[in-house]
Amino acid sequence: MAAVQILATQLDSAVNVAQRAGELFGVLSFATSGALLAVRKNLDIFGMAVLACATALGGGVIRDLLIGRTPPAAFTDLTFLCVSLAATLIVFLRHPPARLVRGPLEVFDAIGLGLFCVTGTVVAYHWGTGAATAALLGMVTGIGGGVIRDLLAGLTPSVLRPDQELYAVPALIGSAVTAVLLHYGLYQAWTGALAAASAIVLRLLARRFGWRAPQALRHIKN
Amino acid sequence: MAAVQILATQLDSAVNVAQRAGELFGVLSFATSGALLAVRKNLDIFGMAVLACATALGGGVIRDLLIGRTPPAAFTDLTFLCVSLAATLIVFLRHPPARLVRGPLEVFDAIGLGLFCVTGTVVAYHWGTGAATAALLGMVTGIGGGVIRDLLAGLTPSVLRPDQELYAVPALIGSAVTAVLLHYGLYQAWTGALAAASAIVLRLLARRFGWRAPQALRHIKN
Amino acid sequence: MAAVQILATQLDSAVNVAQRAGELFGVLSFATSGALLAVRKNLDIFGMAVLACATALGGGVIRDLLIGRTPPAAFTDLTFLCVSLAATLIVFLRHPPARLVRGPLEVFDAIGLGLFCVTGTVVAYHWGTGAATAALLGMVTGIGGGVIRDLLAGLTPSVLRPDQELYAVPALIGSAVTAVLLHYGLYQAWTGALAAASAIVLRLLARRFGWRAPQALRHIKN
Repeated sequence: MAAVQILATQLDSAVNVAQRAGELFGVLSFATSGALLAVRKNLDIFGMAVLACATALGGGVIRDLLIGRTPPAAFTDLTFLCVSLAATLIVFLRHPPARLVRGPLEVFDAIGLGLFCVTGTVVAYHWGTGAATAALLGMVTGIGGGVIRDLLAGLTPSVLRPDQELYAVPALIGSAVTAVLLHYGLYQAWTGALAAASAIVLRLLARRFGWRAPQALRHIKN
Repeated sequence: MAAVQILATQLDSAVNVAQRAGELFGVLSFATSGALLAVRKNLDIFGMAVLACATALGGGVIRDLLIGRTPPAAFTDLTFLCVSLAATLIVFLRHPPARLVRGPLEVFDAIGLGLFCVTGTVVAYHWGTGAATAALLGMVTGIGGGVIRDLLAGLTPSVLRPDQELYAVPALIGSAVTAVLLHYGLYQAWTGALAAASAIVLRLLARRFGWRAPQALRHIKN
Repeated sequence: MAAVQILATQLDSAVNVAQRAGELFGVLSFATSGALLAVRKNLDIFGMAVLACATALGGGVIRDLLIGRTPPAAFTDLTFLCVSLAATLIVFLRHPPARLVRGPLEVFDAIGLGLFCVTGTVVAYHWGTGAATAALLGMVTGIGGGVIRDLLAGLTPSVLRPDQELYAVPALIGSAVTAVLLHYGLYQAWTGALAAASAIVLRLLARRFGWRAPQALRHIKN
C-alpha cells in the first residue's frame, strides 16, 4: 500500500516535472518565434522583447483569464518572463538573416503549439473544468499566442491564412487527446509528451507536404 | 394570487425561452457572417470554422470576462459551439460566390448585432451590474464579435470604417432600450424582441440609405 | 500621535486625489490621442467616440481583467466614459488638419502612457499583487490602450514599429520606479507624479532626438 502511494507520488511528481518542463519549453519556443518575426520586421531589441513576451505569454494569459485565475501565472511566476527575455537575447545575438527567418519561425511555432495545447488542457482540467471545456481551452492556449504575435506584427494569423497548411487540426488533436487521457486517468508524463509530439509532428508534416483542407471556393465550381 | 404567480412564472419562462432563442439565433447569425467572410478570404473549412466560432462566441466571451463569469458560457455550454459549426458547414456547402458575399454578410452581422446587444445587456443585468453598466456591456457584446472577426481577417472593423454607415448607434439604442426596460421591470419576451428588432432595422436602414454621421474633417472646412 | 495620524490621513488623501487626477488626466490624454487618430482616418463622430473610448479605457480594462476586478472600473465608474466622450467632442469641434495630427497625437499618447504606467502599478499593488507583478501590470496598462487604438485603426502598434523611438522603455521605467516607491513605502503624490513625469519626458525626448535601441539586423552585418 505504502509502495503504491510512493509510486503514485513519484508518478505525480513526474507529471508535475513534465508539465513544468512542457510549459517552459513551450514559452521558449513561442518566444523564439516572436523574436524571429521581430527580426524579420526590423524591430529594435525592445520591440523584439515585447513581441517575444506577447507571443510566449499571451496564450497562457488568455487561458488564465478564461478560467478565472487572476493575476495570470505569467505575471506572478516571473520564470516565464525571464525565459522569454533569454530567448529574445539569444535571437538578438544569433539569428539567420531576415529573409531566411520563416522556416525556423514556423518550426518553433509548431513546437510551442503542440506543447501549449497539452499543458493548457492540463491546467484547465486541474482547475476544475470538464474535459470538453479543458480541451477547448487548451486549443485556445495553443493557438492564442501565435494569433497575438501575428496580429501585433500586422500579419494575418497562421490559423486564418488561405495559403496555410493545417493549423487548427493539430492543435485540436493535441488537446482532445490530452482531455481524453485526463478523463480516463491515463494522463502521465509520457502519454502527455506523446500527445504534444503528435500535434507537433502533424503540424510539421502538414507544412512539409502542403496538406490542406478543402476550401469552400473550390466547392463552388462543381 | 396563485394565478398571478403562475402567470409570473409563465412570463419568466417565456423570457427565458426568448433569451435562449435570442442567444442561439445571434450565434447562428454571427457565425454565418464569419463563415461568409472566410469564403471571401478563400479560407479552408477549418479556417472557416475558426473565424465563424471567433465571431459568434467572441462577443459573449468578452462579456463573460468583463462580468467575471469564468469559464465563459461559450466554453461550458457547447450548444453555442455546435451551432457555430453547423453554420460553418451550411455556408461551406451552400454560399454565394465570393464577390457577392458582402451583402448577406452584413445582413447576418446586423441580426447578430441587434440580438447580442439585447441578450448581452440582459445577461449582465441579471449578473448584478447596474443598468448603465449592463447597457455598456451589452453594446460591447454586440460589437465585440464583429470587431474580432474583422481584426482576425485583416479588415478594419465596421464600427471604424470611414465609408461605413451608422453602426455603433443601433447597438447603443438596442442595449440602452433594454437596460431601461429591465430597470423599470418592463422587460418581457416581446419588449426585448422589439428592442432587438429596432437595432437590426435601424442598422439595415442605415446601410440601405447610406445614413452617416458627420465627420470631423468636413467640419474643418467651415 | 493624533497629529501624525491626521498627517498620515492627509497624505493618504493627497495620494488618493493625485491617483484620481492621474487616472482622469490619463484617460483624457489617451481619449484625445484616439480621437485625433480617428480624425486622420476620416471617421465620423461615432467612430471617433468608439476609438477614443477604446484607447482611453482599454488599458485599464485589461489591467482590471488581469487582476480579477470585474466588472472593470471603466464600466462601473462612468466618469471615465464621460471624460472620454468630452475629449471626443472637443477634438471633433477643434482639431488640427488631418495631415498635422500626428505630432499632438504622440504627445497625448506619451502623457497617457506615463500617467497610466504609474496609476496602473498603484491600482495593481493595492489590489494585493507583489511589487514586480504590479510593475508588469502597470506597464501593460500604459501600453495597452495605445496598442488597442493602433490595432483597431489598422496600424502597427507604436511599441512595435521599426522606425519608432523608445516606447517600451519609458513605460518600464515609469512602472518600475513606482513599484520600488510602493515597496519601500515612499510612494506619495509628488514621488508618483515624478515617476510619471520621468516616463513622459523620456518618451518625448526619445521622439525629439530620435533615440533608438539597437536592431538585430544591424548586428548581423558585423
